[in-house]
Amino acid sequence: MILLRRLLGDVLRQRRQRQGRTLREVSSAARVSLGYLSEVERGQKEASSELLSAICGALDIPLSEVLREVSSELALAEARSMLEPAGGSPRTGPMTVTDVVVAA
Amino acid sequence: MILLRRLLGDVLRQRRQRQGRTLREVSSAARVSLGYLSEVERGQKEASSELLSAICGALDIPLSEVLREVSSELALAEARSMLEPAGGSPRTGPMTVTDVVVAA
Repeated sequence: MILLRRLLGDVLRQRRQRQGRTLREVSSAARVSLGYLSEVERGQKEASSELLSAICGALDIPLSEVLREVSSELALAEARSMLEPAGGSPRTGPMTVTDVVVAA
Repeated sequence: MILLRRLLGDVLRQRRQRQGRTLREVSSAARVSLGYLSEVERGQKEASSELLSAICGALDIPLSEVLREVSSELALAEARSMLEPAGGSPRTGPMTVTDVVVAA
């Protein structure tokens, strides 16, 4: 199963690292604990809506932009998971080629 | 503050209602309690990644599509909140006009 919190954590970590900032700096700016931010980035903890807003605020990125990136990553992951022959045959599911094209 | 769970709940409820399905039908298909689904739709409870996947599966919609819609709604809400003269003057923030155009 593709977990939203894993993809969300990846995007948040990439954005932080692209800014050359440490976990300590961003957790302090967001007023969340370093351990919490670290767990969110590793996809081990679900971020509440309030803390997600605080983290995005600390990174100076609109939450909508983070979600758009997560949505695109997720569409690719959904497409890949449909192509994998899990159980011997490609999955049939709600995902369509159009979804991938629109999100790409 | 614009809360992700509120927007997410709105999108999930709209999708369910567009399919003409009841809370009972979708909660049963997703194997979540009716009360939980109702709280998620009303933005009163954060949906875990696993249960969000189950709800989207029950609605036969890719999670990426739901997130894309939430992201677009959020971008509009962010833009509106910047235009509102909260505290007397427009907020300066990470949101840019480009964000709104891209998401629209």
